Amino acid sequence: MKMIALDSSGLVASAAIVQDGELVGEYTINHKKTHSQTLLPMLEELKNMTELELDTVDAIAVAGGPGSFTGLRIGSATAKGLAWTMDVPVISVPTTDAMAYHFYGSDKLICPIMDARRSQVYCGIYTFERTQDEQVRDAQSAKDQTGGRVCYQLRVIQEASAVAVEELIERLNKMKQEVVFLGDGVPVYQNKITEGITVPFSFAPPHCNRQRAANVAVLGAVYFAEGKVQKAAEHAPEYLRLSQAERERMEAEQGVKTSC
Amino acid sequence: MKMIALDSSGLVASAAIVQDGELVGEYTINHKKTHSQTLLPMLEELKNMTELELDTVDAIAVAGGPGSFTGLRIGSATAKGLAWTMDVPVISVPTTDAMAYHFYGSDKLICPIMDARRSQVYCGIYTFERTQDEQVRDAQSAKDQTGGRVCYQLRVIQEASAVAVEELIERLNKMKQEVVFLGDGVPVYQNKITEGITVPFSFAPPHCNRQRAANVAVLGAVYFAEGKVQKAAEHAPEYLRLSQAERERMEAEQGVKTSC
Repeated sequence: MKMIALDSSGLVASAAIVQDGELVGEYTINHKKTHSQTLLPMLEELKNMTELELDTVDAIAVAGGPGSFTGLRIGSATAKGLAWTMDVPVISVPTTDAMAYHFYGSDKLICPIMDARRSQVYCGIYTFERTQDEQVRDAQSAKDQTGGRVCYQLRVIQEASAVAVEELIERLNKMKQEVVFLGDGVPVYQNKITEGITVPFSFAPPHCNRQRAANVAVLGAVYFAEGKVQKAAEHAPEYLRLSQAERERMEAEQGVKTSC
Repeated sequence: MKMIALDSSGLVASAAIVQDGELVGEYTINHKKTHSQTLLPMLEELKNMTELELDTVDAIAVAGGPGSFTGLRIGSATAKGLAWTMDVPVISVPTTDAMAYHFYGSDKLICPIMDARRSQVYCGIYTFERTQDEQVRDAQSAKDQTGGRVCYQLRVIQEASAVAVEELIERLNKMKQEVVFLGDGVPVYQNKITEGITVPFSFAPPHCNRQRAANVAVLGAVYFAEGKVQKAAEHAPEYLRLSQAERERMEAEQGVKTSC
């Protein structure tokens, strides 16, 4: 099973190729260039370096939101274009789910936060649940019952949503568990977090604190196996909020209405 | 502080740039092309995409072994060439330490294994120790004593070494703690591991189960701050074993001696 994955939901642009449970390549840039200039050239570079034949690809996974409106549109438009041309499905992976996957198997709460402006963050709260591998459990049954191969499943405690950072901190304080923060919301809100939070917390280090297409691909493969796929024409990113332009138009229209 | 990081210690070739605690970019390829063909073009691509000015770089971090002899030589030679030309230090990061860093903050034992052929693996055993952030602890002292920002430090339980996989399994069984395996030794030895191990264990998923230059960079920045740097001329990779050519010559010489 071969998959291309894209994440351009934030400041990071990232493309990856996975095949049969192996990461064949990933190219990730966190630089000021806009994604419309970088994402496709990055994928082309990756394709050439890994000698990928496009007609062997089975699916396109994409970070499906939340995130930057323009970034999400570029990612989704690229994914739809590729999937439609190749006649393969799109797998839409929630951005914060993929980010939480950096901490696979962690015993802590994982809280990716992205700056959503207007004093809000896009965030989710996650943990990992331990599941025993069925096939291996049988083979292990004659052995020490405490042993055996375990797998971890991402558990969504709070789905991706746009909330005030104070509200998020309050929710986490009530959960009384250690939490790991990551995402581009951290540099923006780290003072507020440090001041407000009463549970132990850490900030993820640079190699695992932003979007990565490999995470989208690995979680995308789980969704693919579960049949959670979309047709290219059906796919649309999950913005969670109205865009600034839509909001301003609505406010203007309401303004006109109320002034009538 | 700006750093270029390279890892070509295994089948993966990976280059990364970090600056002031942010990953600016990473390019990672796990494909059959040889590193002598890929590593420098990958770095050049990354340099161009991130508009990196070489004269602003403060250090070159490199996966310093163990690993493939040819791979390590290519990585080290490239790092030395860059560092010598730029007149900056080399930071040699043990390959398995950098791989263990995928599981930053984990409560499990982390065991990176690389296939060393001749029925051996290059491996290390690691864990993460929780340390309270000094600056933040003071600010937190008026609050709930269970809260506060925590950091994690990599603790080396067993330094990188070349051992038989059976010996490694025996050692891990005695430690009676859950363990995460990662690295290119996993597909080679997963059956032996599954049969022999009596503690709970998991295999890391594809986005965090191989070498990544970003990990080398992040750990390299820790070493840099501690002054653990080398001059370009001093640096040499840590092979841990003799190469096949050296071993054969030694065996041949000993054979000649004993036959005299």
